[in-house]
Formats: sequence, C-alpha cells, structure tokens
Amino acid sequence: MSQHIVSSFDRDLEAVQAMVVKMGGLVEAQLLDAAQALETRDEELAETVRGRDKAVDKLEEQINEEAARLIALRSPAASDLRVALSVIKISGSLERVGDYSKNIAKRTQVLSQMPTISGSAGAIRRMAQAVEGMLKDAIDSYIQRDEKLAADVRSRDIEVDQMYNALFREFLTYMLEDPRNITACMHLHFIAKNIERMGDLATGIAEQVIYLVTGEMPDEDRPKSDSVTLDKVED
Amino acid sequence: MSQHIVSSFDRDLEAVQAMVVKMGGLVEAQLLDAAQALETRDEELAETVRGRDKAVDKLEEQINEEAARLIALRSPAASDLRVALSVIKISGSLERVGDYSKNIAKRTQVLSQMPTISGSAGAIRRMAQAVEGMLKDAIDSYIQRDEKLAADVRSRDIEVDQMYNALFREFLTYMLEDPRNITACMHLHFIAKNIERMGDLATGIAEQVIYLVTGEMPDEDRPKSDSVTLDKVED
Repeated sequence: MSQHIVSSFDRDLEAVQAMVVKMGGLVEAQLLDAAQALETRDEELAETVRGRDKAVDKLEEQINEEAARLIALRSPAASDLRVALSVIKISGSLERVGDYSKNIAKRTQVLSQMPTISGSAGAIRRMAQAVEGMLKDAIDSYIQRDEKLAADVRSRDIEVDQMYNALFREFLTYMLEDPRNITACMHLHFIAKNIERMGDLATGIAEQVIYLVTGEMPDEDRPKSDSVTLDKVED
Repeated sequence: MSQHIVSSFDRDLEAVQAMVVKMGGLVEAQLLDAAQALETRDEELAETVRGRDKAVDKLEEQINEEAARLIALRSPAASDLRVALSVIKISGSLERVGDYSKNIAKRTQVLSQMPTISGSAGAIRRMAQAVEGMLKDAIDSYIQRDEKLAADVRSRDIEVDQMYNALFREFLTYMLEDPRNITACMHLHFIAKNIERMGDLATGIAEQVIYLVTGEMPDEDRPKSDSVTLDKVED
C-alpha cells in the first residue's frame, strides 16, 4: 500500500477486505465452538453454532455485493480485477467452512445420544485447532499479500491429512471391534472428513494468495501425506 | 435476447455461456462414466475419468478469465454484472461436481479389489442418472433464464435425498451383518454422499437462476425429504 498512490479502488478494496477478515474470524470461532461442543457434549453450544451460520451466510452475501459494486464503480484494470474477484472466491470458501461447522454441530446433537468413542473427540478438537490456525494464517497472508506465510499454510495441510488418516484407522478398529459403535463412528468419521476438507479450503485460500502475488498457481503436486490409507482418495 | 438491442456485452456473454454449456456437458459425462465404471468394475474407464478432470479444471480457469475480461472490458451495469458474476459461481460449482466424479473413480479402483456389495452399484448409478438430469436442466434453465425449469430442478433434489437415505440404511445393514463389509460400505457410502452433494450443487445452480430472473433468492425451506435418517444432517 505504501509503494503506490492510494486510489479509490484501494480504499474500497480495504473496506471489503475488512469484511473478509471479519468473516474469517467468525468462521474460525464457529469451527472451534463446534469442536468444543463435540468434546464436552454441549448441545446448547452446538445449537448456538447452528444458529450463527446465518450470520456467516449473510456476510458472504454482503461481501459479494460489495465486490460487485466495487467492480462496477471502479472498472478496475486486469490486476485489480483479479484482486476483486479473489474476494468472491475467498468468501465462498469461508462460507463452505461455515457450513461444515454447522454440520459438525448437527452431528454433535445426534452423537450426544450415543455411547462415547473414547479419545476421538479430543483428537478431533486438536485437528480443528490445527485447521483453525491454517484459516487464520491464510486470511492473514491474504491481507498482507504474504506469499511465504501462504506457502507455510499449504505445507501444514499434510499434518491435518495425517491426523485424519490416524482417526480413520481408529474408527475402523472401533467398528470392527463392536458393531454397536458403527453409527457413532460413521458420524465421527464424517466430522473428521469435514475438518480435513476445511484444511483443503484453507489451502485453497493460500493458493489464491500465491496466485495473486506471483501471477501463477502453485504446482499441482502440493505436499501430501505419504501414508496412503484406503480412504485417502480425495481430490 | 430478442427483446432488447444486442449489445457487445451480450455477444461476449454468449461466448462465455457457451463455455459453461461445454463445461456442463463434460461434467455430466464424467459423472455418468464414473457411475458406469463403478457398476461394471471397469478400472480403465475409472482411470479415464480421473485423467479427464484436468480438462474440467482448465475450462473453469478459462471461463473465469473470460468473465473477468468481460467485466474489465465492458464495465457492465449492476444487472449485467450480476450475470457475469453468476458465470463464475456456476463454473465453480461445476468444477466441484467434476472433483466428486474424480473421487468416485478413485474409490472405484479401490473397490474393485473388494467383495461386491450386492445391488448397491446399480442403485448408485440410478442416483447418478437422476443427478445428471438435474445438472443438465440446471444449465439449460440458466441459458434460457427459465425460472420454472429451475424450480423443477430444485424440487427434484428431494428424490435424490430419498435415494441417498435408502442407500445409507442399506449400507448400515450390510455392515452390521458382516464386519468384513465395513470398508467397502464406507467407500460406497462416501460415493453416495458425493452424488447427493452434486444434487445440492445442481440445486444451487438452479437457485442462482431464480435469483438472476427474480432478483431474489428462493426461500430457505426448499423441499427436503421427510425421512430423517441419522445421517441426513447436511446443511
């Protein structure tokens, strides 16, 4: 910002980006609260998470409207247009992260009626914390156009994949041990999968940042966990 | 188009929309081929589906670039801008449908090494056909700005949800019956879930059309299946 004259476009963009930061913060809180509700079997907190998703959706709508208004009003040139369009992509990703948190909250309410699968909720919470950190840094890297921080987010996705793989094996063991665990484990497995997907979405935001800064999307062969379980067949 | 003078914006828009139609056709073929490969245990076809996903991604990139060029070049007013932005949203949804097909193809290759779960692949193919029809009509409704067809697509999502619910119960039964079925059933369950999500994405495109035509998003309480299984906790 300090290197060139601040234009009307830049000022308007800053306002939209502030909304993206706000949306990021809300979505991070949703994820952490959803994971906590799961661990403490707090149905009330789960209900709060479900209700708050409307605010996330509303924010995405507002951001899209503002970005469209910005484009219409300022008719930005190619590189600025790319930035304005990235706002739409990023808020779309955050909205999906919000949806997954809401889904976790719904499953938490169902799981509260079932036998506990020992240790799993704690492992899921740790996974959620790792992904929350990725989301936070992805948004930060976006605001600061920090390519290095974005690359760091991208590389951390491998840890989340490993956590997911470990959980998948654990759930399979519990199901084989006792068929009465099957339904609970399937819900927990979907929750773990949803968090793993949030990690992918944070990585996607980081890749947008790299694209904005360098003009090129990073290589396809992003670091992936070596441990190939039968289930790790995403993308 | 016949009601007003055809502008440069309209002509450019038509070119981008033709790319969306092409992308839709490709993505529909990917879904049908993935379902067929699953049913006939055709690993070669599954490999073809996986390879072709690159073309889907490429098309999305091109569409986004063209839409951005269109916006930059024509500086469209509010309503035209909304149309140009909808192109980006729709191609984003189609890209996700493509990703899910690729994922089905990957799981098919894993499932080919496992015992068959009787009847399930046929049921999944029928579900895929229903969703393919929804996708086709969603794109048609977009090109023709046909609000009625879009509403029809939206209402058909309930059938897909019901098919998914039936499959979910079936997989649960197979798993409880014989623990050796668990791994295969979990893959099949993910496949069914992916197709159900594609139905949601087709519905999302239809809702974009309704928004474009009427200026308002349809009510939140879109028709949902009454049959609430433990798993039906999406959105």
